[in-house]
Amino acid sequence: MSVLARRALAEFTGTALLVAIVVGSGIAAQQLSAGDVGLQLLENSTATVFGLAVLILVFGPISGAHFNPVVSAADWLAGRRGAGLTPAELASYLAAQISGAILGAILANAMFDQPALQLSTHHRITSGHLIGEFVATAGLIMVIFALARTGRAALSATAVAAWIGAAYWFTSSTSFANPAVTIGRVFTDTFAGIAPTSAPAFIAAQLLGAAAGLALITVLYPDTGDHAGEVVVGHDQPTHH
Amino acid sequence: MSVLARRALAEFTGTALLVAIVVGSGIAAQQLSAGDVGLQLLENSTATVFGLAVLILVFGPISGAHFNPVVSAADWLAGRRGAGLTPAELASYLAAQISGAILGAILANAMFDQPALQLSTHHRITSGHLIGEFVATAGLIMVIFALARTGRAALSATAVAAWIGAAYWFTSSTSFANPAVTIGRVFTDTFAGIAPTSAPAFIAAQLLGAAAGLALITVLYPDTGDHAGEVVVGHDQPTHH
Amino acid sequence: MSVLARRALAEFTGTALLVAIVVGSGIAAQQLSAGDVGLQLLENSTATVFGLAVLILVFGPISGAHFNPVVSAADWLAGRRGAGLTPAELASYLAAQISGAILGAILANAMFDQPALQLSTHHRITSGHLIGEFVATAGLIMVIFALARTGRAALSATAVAAWIGAAYWFTSSTSFANPAVTIGRVFTDTFAGIAPTSAPAFIAAQLLGAAAGLALITVLYPDTGDHAGEVVVGHDQPTHH
Amino acid sequence: MSVLARRALAEFTGTALLVAIVVGSGIAAQQLSAGDVGLQLLENSTATVFGLAVLILVFGPISGAHFNPVVSAADWLAGRRGAGLTPAELASYLAAQISGAILGAILANAMFDQPALQLSTHHRITSGHLIGEFVATAGLIMVIFALARTGRAALSATAVAAWIGAAYWFTSSTSFANPAVTIGRVFTDTFAGIAPTSAPAFIAAQLLGAAAGLALITVLYPDTGDHAGEVVVGHDQPTHH
Repeated sequence: MSVLARRALAEFTGTALLVAIVVGSGIAAQQLSAGDVGLQLLENSTATVFGLAVLILVFGPISGAHFNPVVSAADWLAGRRGAGLTPAELASYLAAQISGAILGAILANAMFDQPALQLSTHHRITSGHLIGEFVATAGLIMVIFALARTGRAALSATAVAAWIGAAYWFTSSTSFANPAVTIGRVFTDTFAGIAPTSAPAFIAAQLLGAAAGLALITVLYPDTGDHAGEVVVGHDQPTHH
Repeated sequence: MSVLARRALAEFTGTALLVAIVVGSGIAAQQLSAGDVGLQLLENSTATVFGLAVLILVFGPISGAHFNPVVSAADWLAGRRGAGLTPAELASYLAAQISGAILGAILANAMFDQPALQLSTHHRITSGHLIGEFVATAGLIMVIFALARTGRAALSATAVAAWIGAAYWFTSSTSFANPAVTIGRVFTDTFAGIAPTSAPAFIAAQLLGAAAGLALITVLYPDTGDHAGEVVVGHDQPTHH
Repeated sequence: MSVLARRALAEFTGTALLVAIVVGSGIAAQQLSAGDVGLQLLENSTATVFGLAVLILVFGPISGAHFNPVVSAADWLAGRRGAGLTPAELASYLAAQISGAILGAILANAMFDQPALQLSTHHRITSGHLIGEFVATAGLIMVIFALARTGRAALSATAVAAWIGAAYWFTSSTSFANPAVTIGRVFTDTFAGIAPTSAPAFIAAQLLGAAAGLALITVLYPDTGDHAGEVVVGHDQPTHH
Repeated sequence: MSVLARRALAEFTGTALLVAIVVGSGIAAQQLSAGDVGLQLLENSTATVFGLAVLILVFGPISGAHFNPVVSAADWLAGRRGAGLTPAELASYLAAQISGAILGAILANAMFDQPALQLSTHHRITSGHLIGEFVATAGLIMVIFALARTGRAALSATAVAAWIGAAYWFTSSTSFANPAVTIGRVFTDTFAGIAPTSAPAFIAAQLLGAAAGLALITVLYPDTGDHAGEVVVGHDQPTHH
């Protein structure tokens, strides 16, 4: 298997499991804690924090564990003169992430003995929610690049997971912060779903947030250092011998 | 005491405490949070995450802290040409794990002033639950071997515990992911129990999941590296001087 | 951008996000878990622990990630003969922290589709609460300086967050422990708000607590070591190349 | 101040804060989550995990951060030929721990605007609870010495806290596991209190459990290694320069 194929497989599997975790734990929470929506969200966010951190550890040495189109795009954009993704690699990553995300939602539906194919009816657009997606995604990009540019990418697994765990709660939109995951979550009409008509505005807010986060990083950490290629946890690094 | 005897004692004690943690915290949760099953599961999973991570740290340097027949079997299977368990060692590990698991359930029953010997009446088989066991066990094997093959076995304690913490929630079956623990949990008719008639199908799904996880690891991390013997946290490593 | 301007920008952005996390997760908790104030506080404190740890990791290499006037003042006071802040730097830090805190509250209000400008009506003064602020702030200063003086500032992100997570619960005042955050929380009439008339006494208790914590550190860790400049995670350290 | 005085001050302050955390978060939980005792215990255990880990980090380099007579006694017993406490030091530690624990309970009572001096009326003796104390304390000693004897004492802060966090739930007695803390908890008639008549049996079970844990460690880790003095996180180690 070629190196790029392995990296795409890692992005596909990792994003599928990430969406399975988000959607599956949401279904479990909704079924088991019917009386308190906040408790449901706490269960959902706790499971996501644990699962996301592990997935980054498992797949990071192969693909960088992006699982997220805006992270891959930022990697390409920030690294065009050096260690970033090429346009062809970026296209592979995006395809793997989006198809993985959809499969992950189907898998979660199946695990909970529900119809495999569903479309969400959960409308989520408010101006507050779009500000929330903007802030959550800007912060996510800042976490990833601040750690990469200071040689601390080994902390990304816990830091990215912790950021998402906080943003579930403080952003009002519960922090999707990921276009692929947003698309995947269209395919489940459960706790974590999002209606197809709400997805485009969420994704637009995520793109704007990612740009803002990258701009702020460029001001705060202008030196890309020797670690420019280590987005999330680095890909094709020596640890992957 | 021989090296193998010490390793078997570590597997026995560690698996006993693991099942005592899973079963005991389940009983406490059921008694104290009678009104919300989701909250019970959150208490149960939180205690398991903390306890499992600690047990891996404590017993890892001696036996590798498998506590799980599919992990030991994968260690033997993947390491047949080198640092893996021998068939005789594998047999010792399995005996220690299964007997420890049963003792752990009895200990938990006793700690909560309940009849020491019980059989669960909790039937758990659905097709979704079996998919859940498959996914949970595949992921567990991937976590362990991905870390071992990239020289990061020191992260196994937290990563394995975090994976189980996520899988409690997202897999629908609450992630047994361990044939020994499954057998142990037959011996308590409380929150974490599983009826004897449900156990074989759960174990079969776990075996299939472990095989799938190992296959995926072989594709993603074909190079076993210098760390092939470090399943979970390594056994007989220099740290255990 | 000058080095000091970047440091002030880091303090401004970090403190704004910290208050947005505290206030925003408080609003979410209040809306979603209306039936149990304790559960609301658990959601609020969990989000704060995750978010605060990440913010320290992100901004630490630039400004030291103080986000807190008493930390900056202690840095100046303890380091007057060496690596501490100068009076001019201290003034910049305080201005950035306080203005950032106010902006953070406004951002949280806006994310939850509430009036952006509010004043809290939540009166919080009791003698127990003031003792609580004293203890929480003394402990915070001890954590930061104990780690800095023993060359373990890399642990500050998790240790500071964990301390605040504990102090949310054990101090009765829910541990503001930060004059800038206290001022920011005046500007939201939601779960995490504090009435303007309660703020001065809280800040006074925090100042006294910080002094007591610094005194105890001077007795326990008299040697400032080679790491005197690493308050929280160090500023202008080699990691920030 | 002499080295021993500083070490005793560290044990006194650390144990006082530990009991303040246990008792204070118990009072907060009881007041805020009146409808669910399990949720109260989850809030109480979460706060304890965070707080205990931080206290070990803060005071470890000075005194070893025992905060617990059975840990100090095991340090003396296991290290009589080398790096352990001397009998005189042990006596100082015990006095500091017990007096600190009582002060901590009083402080917690005061922070919550309750009478400072109270005696618990919470009777806790059952055979299951005593087995629970035995298991919790045996495990605690195993965690501390397994890490110390394998050169991983730097992990003690999180591992000890995680063990207590698990044992709160799985041991039925909610894991006091500490004679000084048991005595301190006599002095509050709130959630975490224990009646004076229940304390002696709890302490006896803790002593037996500690002996069992130390015996098991002697079998599993017979080599005390070069790190024999690092009980919990080491005292008077180079990190405390």
